[in-house]
Amino acid sequence: MNQNVRIMDYAIRGTISERADEIEKELLKGEKKPFNKIIRVNLGDCHAVGQIPITFLRQLLATCTYTELLKSSSIPSDVKERAKIILQSCTGGSVGSYSTSSGIDVIRQHVAKYIEKRDGHRAYTDNIILCAGVAEGFKTILKLFKAGVDCKNPGVMIPVPQFPLYTATLTEYGISRIPYFLKESNFWSLDMDHLKDQIKIARSYCFPRAIVVINPGNPTGQLLTRENIEDLIRFAYKERLFIFADELYQDNVYDSKFFSFKKVMIELGEPYNKMECASFMSASKGYTGECGLRGAYIEVFNMDTEVKEIYKKLLNTSLCSPTLGQVAIDAIVNPPQKGEPSYDLFIQEKTKVLGDLKIKAKMVVDAFNSYDGFKCNPLQGALYAFPKITLPPGALKKAEKKKILPDVYYCKKLLEKTGIVTVPGSGFGQEEGTYHFRTTILPPVEVLQEMLKLFQSFHKQFFERYSKYDI
Amino acid sequence: MNQNVRIMDYAIRGTISERADEIEKELLKGEKKPFNKIIRVNLGDCHAVGQIPITFLRQLLATCTYTELLKSSSIPSDVKERAKIILQSCTGGSVGSYSTSSGIDVIRQHVAKYIEKRDGHRAYTDNIILCAGVAEGFKTILKLFKAGVDCKNPGVMIPVPQFPLYTATLTEYGISRIPYFLKESNFWSLDMDHLKDQIKIARSYCFPRAIVVINPGNPTGQLLTRENIEDLIRFAYKERLFIFADELYQDNVYDSKFFSFKKVMIELGEPYNKMECASFMSASKGYTGECGLRGAYIEVFNMDTEVKEIYKKLLNTSLCSPTLGQVAIDAIVNPPQKGEPSYDLFIQEKTKVLGDLKIKAKMVVDAFNSYDGFKCNPLQGALYAFPKITLPPGALKKAEKKKILPDVYYCKKLLEKTGIVTVPGSGFGQEEGTYHFRTTILPPVEVLQEMLKLFQSFHKQFFERYSKYDI
Repeated sequence: MNQNVRIMDYAIRGTISERADEIEKELLKGEKKPFNKIIRVNLGDCHAVGQIPITFLRQLLATCTYTELLKSSSIPSDVKERAKIILQSCTGGSVGSYSTSSGIDVIRQHVAKYIEKRDGHRAYTDNIILCAGVAEGFKTILKLFKAGVDCKNPGVMIPVPQFPLYTATLTEYGISRIPYFLKESNFWSLDMDHLKDQIKIARSYCFPRAIVVINPGNPTGQLLTRENIEDLIRFAYKERLFIFADELYQDNVYDSKFFSFKKVMIELGEPYNKMECASFMSASKGYTGECGLRGAYIEVFNMDTEVKEIYKKLLNTSLCSPTLGQVAIDAIVNPPQKGEPSYDLFIQEKTKVLGDLKIKAKMVVDAFNSYDGFKCNPLQGALYAFPKITLPPGALKKAEKKKILPDVYYCKKLLEKTGIVTVPGSGFGQEEGTYHFRTTILPPVEVLQEMLKLFQSFHKQFFERYSKYDI
Repeated sequence: MNQNVRIMDYAIRGTISERADEIEKELLKGEKKPFNKIIRVNLGDCHAVGQIPITFLRQLLATCTYTELLKSSSIPSDVKERAKIILQSCTGGSVGSYSTSSGIDVIRQHVAKYIEKRDGHRAYTDNIILCAGVAEGFKTILKLFKAGVDCKNPGVMIPVPQFPLYTATLTEYGISRIPYFLKESNFWSLDMDHLKDQIKIARSYCFPRAIVVINPGNPTGQLLTRENIEDLIRFAYKERLFIFADELYQDNVYDSKFFSFKKVMIELGEPYNKMECASFMSASKGYTGECGLRGAYIEVFNMDTEVKEIYKKLLNTSLCSPTLGQVAIDAIVNPPQKGEPSYDLFIQEKTKVLGDLKIKAKMVVDAFNSYDGFKCNPLQGALYAFPKITLPPGALKKAEKKKILPDVYYCKKLLEKTGIVTVPGSGFGQEEGTYHFRTTILPPVEVLQEMLKLFQSFHKQFFERYSKYDI
């Protein structure tokens, strides 16, 4: 048994989530609980908690799949035109054929145009790779950094807290993680002095090769300022690091402005505009929330020619990403334009999703900040809140007795008393002695309101009980 | 750079296929060639060469995706009923939500029932994993066998010739391959004495952990007899090998009967019915040919409980396979039944695809066996012919001069003169001093006829030229 596989774990689908599955079954069997349903806010799984699919996207998928719909009057003409263009770019005119391993050509062209429009700088189809989700895409590129003859012990810098799939993949590949902590007291921003210290320490035990940045942050919800991005680029240049820019939540931005790493790299000019970078984006989040379709894209930027060739060879062994996930990406990068029949409904649906998220982002943060012992940074982007909880000493002692981490104990109690499923902060990493949990802001406004009410009363009882606890 | 990645290659999408892409562009630019189109028989990519999608499957996908179709009179009621059942099993009622990492529950139940019906033995939903293609599924299980503390140097037996993704994955994972040759002179059957010799040799340099069997064979097209399967199971038991049964082409069987490894294991009784096995099946081949959707399933059988737990943890890090690929699997394992509105068209379409393949299987083999220097075993299953060619000495000398393998030289010449894209036998492995190539039998009958005519005249000229060649 491969040890790297054995020790790997993925907190988001860990014990709390498994216990929630059991409870759901117990409820179905009629067992008495202090609640009558499970509220899942552990996964960024938009449709699972009621987000409505974008009609235009679903019509495009259905038409590409069942081409009789090209003749149907119920499908708008702009959808049909797009479907025809995509099908022409599929070998044999069918989404049932393999695409090239980088993806359907015309969709990659649309992605390049979309990025050009976003950044105001050229993007090249040859640099676009369609993939089955960001995790999948990250894994394929990371493989290039695994230990080899020319580097016995590679390391990759990752933020703490961070999306646990990054840690899991590094563990699986036997690559050293070099943690850098986001500064909670300054809105989860980057502290460059700390990064410099961390890489210095790391050089004593490994060879740093790359850095992962998540912007907007998951689970932390911050948006990096342009200045922060510039600092990080300069740092990566000096330390010769490949930049993995997880920009998955670029459409989930509230009040602030998103800058892509590539845009900033280009605008910093020489030598930074020659640096290597990979940027990730997906159909799973944003306003579409199509997690199940497994559609994502990567833009690789300035990748070394020889490495790129090997990268493409590696992609070939996975044949291709699911074509319908690719079509979902097309819907995002080539949306209805003003004057087209799908435009009004599309804008209405998109605005509704993003507008609601903005309301919910504020609602959740405000609520949490009103609880004793809670401190939650404002949510500038992404779909999660990650509040800090100061746990009463009694709770710490109880957790120790039960031999589980205090944040896990808190989240377990929360689940058993209210049915709310969260992820303990230890799953993402947190500074020692601090405790957090992650919740999504995805459920509909009224469900979220109900959840916050349950949460508040649980928290009050928990605090009362464990403040009194005999310590 | 990871060396295992650097040396990995995937012949099917290798240099010949890349040259075909270039030629296609040259043709578009108006360059003169001895042919006016490329005929791709290198990839088992059914729809790419004109196979028509199964209407029932596409309607089911479209309805699950665009649920307004549940109200449409153009979708048959049995499709709608199935779509509703699937959607009920999706969290939030949407294919846009993540499924569990093993797949949508109701589809896994349908798979188990389907296997029960096929084999006449119990199958359990808990043992079914839906995955994004067989290669993907194989990789995840193989990870469990990577070098670890308890086994420094694992090895896996693989057939030669074999589907090159197996070799590529072993290389990538740094697992030793233990080749066993299929006996071409006896219809590519298994020679058990040879397998015993090979594992004996292998034990001097690695620790054999598993064996891969491809049945029906790719690229070789044989179907293992029940006796052959029994022998292999006994051998695997004695040598304590996990069996990977690639049974992807179980629906593509001509004249003979397919037996699953699991069925034979159970019917052999103790101790064989306790052996560990994983069987793979997919929506990409069979009569559906939906390669682009990335839908497949695995049945794991008797997997060690502790290992299974780690396996499921590993699956969690990939979130889930594409839900629409999962729906394609449902269409296969839960097809229209007699009396249902979709039944007649479904049977008609399915029969047509499988009937044509049977005709083409014979047509290709007969044609090849009529050429000088060709010897092609009958095609009992799968979608490929893999004839042996005795190349004239002049061709061998020419290839040597060009520093390429003789079979590659032959396939390159074939491409440049006729536009036919095949895969050289060296990509799959072949006994030293023998030369082969693989062609699919997928193009429509009339295209295949045209191809065989072109092939014959090329082969005649090639033989005449290189028999005369000054050696």
